[in-house]
Amino acid sequence: METMFFPRSIAIIGVSNSPSNNGRVIVENMERFGFDGIMHLVGGRRDSLSGRTIFAHVSEIPETPDLAVILVPASRLLEVLEACGEKGIRRVVIETGGFSEFGDDRKDLEGEIVDMASKWNMKVIGPNCVGIVNVENGLILPFYPLYPSEAGKGRVSIISQSGGLVHDIIVLANIDNVGVNKLVSIGNKLVSDENDVLEYLISDTDTGIIGLYLENIADGRRLMDLARSTDKPIVLLKSNRSPGSREIARFHTSALAGDDRVVDEALKQAGVHRVRDLGEMVDAFKAFSLPPLKGPSLAVIARSGGQAVLSADSVYLHGFTLASFSERFFAMLSEKTRAGVIRRTNPLDLGDVFDFDVYLAIIEEALREDGVDAVLMLHSYALGVDFQPSVRLMSGCGELVKKYGKPVVFCTIVHKENWTAMHEIKDLPVFTYVDDALAALRKSLDHFAPRPDKSTQTVKYSQKRTSRSRLAKGIVPVGDVFGLLHAYNLEVADYRIVNAMSDGLGEGRNMGFPLALKTASAEVLHKTEQGGVFLGLRDDAGLEEAFRKLGKPGPYLLQKMVPPGCEMIIGGRNDPEFGSVVMCGMGGIFVEIYKDVAVRVVPVDEREASAMVDDLKGVDILKGFRGSRPYDIEFLVDALVNVSRLLCEHPEIGTLDINPLILFGKGEGGVVVDAKLEIT
Amino acid sequence: METMFFPRSIAIIGVSNSPSNNGRVIVENMERFGFDGIMHLVGGRRDSLSGRTIFAHVSEIPETPDLAVILVPASRLLEVLEACGEKGIRRVVIETGGFSEFGDDRKDLEGEIVDMASKWNMKVIGPNCVGIVNVENGLILPFYPLYPSEAGKGRVSIISQSGGLVHDIIVLANIDNVGVNKLVSIGNKLVSDENDVLEYLISDTDTGIIGLYLENIADGRRLMDLARSTDKPIVLLKSNRSPGSREIARFHTSALAGDDRVVDEALKQAGVHRVRDLGEMVDAFKAFSLPPLKGPSLAVIARSGGQAVLSADSVYLHGFTLASFSERFFAMLSEKTRAGVIRRTNPLDLGDVFDFDVYLAIIEEALREDGVDAVLMLHSYALGVDFQPSVRLMSGCGELVKKYGKPVVFCTIVHKENWTAMHEIKDLPVFTYVDDALAALRKSLDHFAPRPDKSTQTVKYSQKRTSRSRLAKGIVPVGDVFGLLHAYNLEVADYRIVNAMSDGLGEGRNMGFPLALKTASAEVLHKTEQGGVFLGLRDDAGLEEAFRKLGKPGPYLLQKMVPPGCEMIIGGRNDPEFGSVVMCGMGGIFVEIYKDVAVRVVPVDEREASAMVDDLKGVDILKGFRGSRPYDIEFLVDALVNVSRLLCEHPEIGTLDINPLILFGKGEGGVVVDAKLEIT
Repeated sequence: METMFFPRSIAIIGVSNSPSNNGRVIVENMERFGFDGIMHLVGGRRDSLSGRTIFAHVSEIPETPDLAVILVPASRLLEVLEACGEKGIRRVVIETGGFSEFGDDRKDLEGEIVDMASKWNMKVIGPNCVGIVNVENGLILPFYPLYPSEAGKGRVSIISQSGGLVHDIIVLANIDNVGVNKLVSIGNKLVSDENDVLEYLISDTDTGIIGLYLENIADGRRLMDLARSTDKPIVLLKSNRSPGSREIARFHTSALAGDDRVVDEALKQAGVHRVRDLGEMVDAFKAFSLPPLKGPSLAVIARSGGQAVLSADSVYLHGFTLASFSERFFAMLSEKTRAGVIRRTNPLDLGDVFDFDVYLAIIEEALREDGVDAVLMLHSYALGVDFQPSVRLMSGCGELVKKYGKPVVFCTIVHKENWTAMHEIKDLPVFTYVDDALAALRKSLDHFAPRPDKSTQTVKYSQKRTSRSRLAKGIVPVGDVFGLLHAYNLEVADYRIVNAMSDGLGEGRNMGFPLALKTASAEVLHKTEQGGVFLGLRDDAGLEEAFRKLGKPGPYLLQKMVPPGCEMIIGGRNDPEFGSVVMCGMGGIFVEIYKDVAVRVVPVDEREASAMVDDLKGVDILKGFRGSRPYDIEFLVDALVNVSRLLCEHPEIGTLDINPLILFGKGEGGVVVDAKLEIT
Repeated sequence: METMFFPRSIAIIGVSNSPSNNGRVIVENMERFGFDGIMHLVGGRRDSLSGRTIFAHVSEIPETPDLAVILVPASRLLEVLEACGEKGIRRVVIETGGFSEFGDDRKDLEGEIVDMASKWNMKVIGPNCVGIVNVENGLILPFYPLYPSEAGKGRVSIISQSGGLVHDIIVLANIDNVGVNKLVSIGNKLVSDENDVLEYLISDTDTGIIGLYLENIADGRRLMDLARSTDKPIVLLKSNRSPGSREIARFHTSALAGDDRVVDEALKQAGVHRVRDLGEMVDAFKAFSLPPLKGPSLAVIARSGGQAVLSADSVYLHGFTLASFSERFFAMLSEKTRAGVIRRTNPLDLGDVFDFDVYLAIIEEALREDGVDAVLMLHSYALGVDFQPSVRLMSGCGELVKKYGKPVVFCTIVHKENWTAMHEIKDLPVFTYVDDALAALRKSLDHFAPRPDKSTQTVKYSQKRTSRSRLAKGIVPVGDVFGLLHAYNLEVADYRIVNAMSDGLGEGRNMGFPLALKTASAEVLHKTEQGGVFLGLRDDAGLEEAFRKLGKPGPYLLQKMVPPGCEMIIGGRNDPEFGSVVMCGMGGIFVEIYKDVAVRVVPVDEREASAMVDDLKGVDILKGFRGSRPYDIEFLVDALVNVSRLLCEHPEIGTLDINPLILFGKGEGGVVVDAKLEIT
């Protein structure tokens, strides 16, 4: 992959002299950015472009290029790929569009591309993309014009399923003084997908922060494993969350969406920072461009009382605290400013101190405080005379950030007239709104504050078939489900499967009352709603009456009534993007309405299962609410780990629904009452 | 108030020749904006400033100004106010700071200002503010420099408890092409508060949209009544939501915060659009600067597939729908573009159409569609050659907005270099991020879509003592609470208050079993936790045993056990900013954890009470969940209206807590089991 980003020579295929020719735009981009290798141009006929030869065919190129970028129409693509293969080219970026994003009838062509790549052992990016932007060596492959002034060199690298967003992100980052490094548009990701590129960017020393825009996730497990293998912050924008966007995404780069809640939890498990829109993504890049935030304690310095109040709201909202300044700090403050003008508070309202050099001194003193993990500066300025001093202040903050290794989060409302001049400040990202800034800074805290989970989760996220036999497809009979649960240490309330009332009455007497009688037919999925459940049967007569009322053919499930406890549900299902996930929730109808559930990609170990239980709002009930008895949380955690193991060893499980599991008091365990299982 | 904004002549008191003098900044502001009245300057000694006389004393002014703006130190304020009064000046803006925002010891001075204003019958804005900006007549009173280029004339007027935010909002609105009209900084609002200014702005024909930034709310009831009296959109940013910000706010403009949830609900009741930060506020101004949105159906047009997918997510997230385009529209599309390049979808991905004039034609055709309520345009452009065509496109959209009276929500990522040039586009607000844009547009839909509540709520929000007698302070004995509830048609489960076991046993027999026995002592607030409740007593012996176990002195509450039903809670309390509020929630411990409650400022009528019940997630249980019986929602609604009446007629109620009220099946009513009441 390294050579894909740093080719010594490149063939640009599909170039003509026409001013609107896309290939020509790429040549101009590479020239403007001073590409440090050799460009070979190939077009429909021999020609020349600003002194360079345009060859009529790939074979005419006087060497074997490291990389080819292809812009010919879809109809000519295979022929050109074949030529590239014959020429010995092993890395190709296909920018051509018009494949599965335009309709299922183009899927065959995609298959042929894959075959061709395999035949020539080619790495391929695309099709339907704008390729690579590498500001390190001037490899600028998008077919829209880009300028060095709008793509400052920095540490942010991007993988995007949309070529347009690559452009948007470059411009947005530039507006707020964030530099970029390598940007890759992966398009329909026929051969190389986001994980292949991600693996490279993780190893790339120029890349410090990685952003992904995805419309679908190719292999969620590998994404998680890659994310866990690095300390680099990864920020992910996943679209395609609603039915409407799914439609357009399919047309766009043929994405098929998974369940959004699973995406959320899986990414959290892997330490990936999920964002909801482009703005939040760029804000995250800004925060991560600052030094790592080591603790939650902020010094807030504001030029306006209103901004100070609003920022204090945000500080609490995002889980930060306001640092206590030392006497030393206040002594300095009195010295630098007229006494009595600034109150000794945090947020510090600068009141009628108007000297921006004093601001810089105050910010430096705040950074010197042991109790301060970062400074939040809220700067407003008057148009005109105030701007140059503001630039000086911001550049000074950039220096302080380097000197003290702590973030200065600089929020300022830049006047329309001053945006262009903001170029002068290279080293300090700027924010406009406090709330956006602190939401972003929170990600830095989450990322760099000690995270026990990252090291202690002992199980990896790979999910491979073990020696256990595959279960047969379809709805599994309840007896088999209970047997399977039993094999995974999940105790089921004492039960018998019987086929006729006559057997049932005898068995009932053996088991002892009270009993429950349920239909055990695999066809009846919602037993209660369909009149298939009779509870609390106290004697022979009651059981017999229940059999008669049930009026359904066997098999029947006869089960011992379970003492009261807390109703829980444990479930599992197979997610198309992340594989098996395990779910835990409070049971009963109230919680069905409040949807109090936790989800994780399996496997989960004890620590992670415990975190799942803590995620439930109902955990307060489990811990013993207002003096009532606590329930056996340890048992629940064990049960989750066991279900996780079951799901891991049987990836063929489509849906597992243990409902209810009755949890007894602390130390008393719990028991499964009912369960459903479908194999897909 | 009109004269406050449109004075024929104004005295600026506290002016000197010094370049850093605040009064001088004001004079320069007014000159730059071409104030259309007469300025009289007053300073410490006779002098002149750019050809104008500075008088040494107010009495020297050769006429009686309509308005005085005062910048003298706090210590000289009373003397200057007296001089103004003697001169006949009846409107004053006090910009001087250093009052209660700096400490309680300055409260006396504030009292003297109020007395002085009352003595001379003066309207006063401030102290501790930057006064008024009126772009209509060039009355520009802030003591920071302002320029006409940064404050384009528009329809947005602002009331702000922070002077700094006035500046921030002007700059932010300007960045995105939104014009402002009148901005008022009200500071410590000693005499005139936000409601006085709001009343004027509602009547002001130049003002179309009103924004408020408040740190506390002076009189929530009046604010609600004013908001309900107008169709102008009101957007409110209320800070001071966290303990930390409350501290700084007190220092800032002496604000005391109320309960934030009540603020939320009260503003919703009054149709005020609450926002959480400055960004959301400016976005709301942009959306309301466009024509009213009449329906939820959007046409989305995007230059990039990624933006199209992201926008579709946002469309659904904010409750909009994607319009279906007509055959006429697609026919036009094929005509204007090469066939087959654009898919017939909404969002419409412009694909490889690059002619911006064609974009404008497509937007116009979309606006002409009956099924389209607004167009969302997502525009990206390349730096350089694309910018002027982009400006033309935006200006063209501004024209289309006027022509068709429908919003064009224009999102574009403006290059750093192009911000200044954005001045050229006057008539179209621009957004950067789709999600922000649609969140804002949603407010327009909420505001302009038919709202039955605005006309049908029959009761006003004023809360005035009626003829009923005031209740005595303190915790009210349970018998009196039940009596009061009974007087408001709230039936309590059959009960007796007894003082000794001997009476209790007899009464119990008369009432009939099963019974409950509870302590009725006013001191025991949490009866259950303190072992003061015995339920389900089935006979004399059980009752006697309960009496002995209770082991507490009388009085005792003996109560008929109530048949099972759905546990609800109804509560009330007195909010410092909005007066009495009524609360309704699901009962029981689960819902205590899920905090499923609805809140309203009283009075609530049947329609509003019904909306409260609908606000509960648990309403699905009340309506009959998965085939279980529905509960008597009508009874619950009546109970809420009755409690609302009780709270209205007894504003001295500090806290009322009806818990539980047991709701029976539909048509069967319900009954109060327990209640507490505290009078403050």
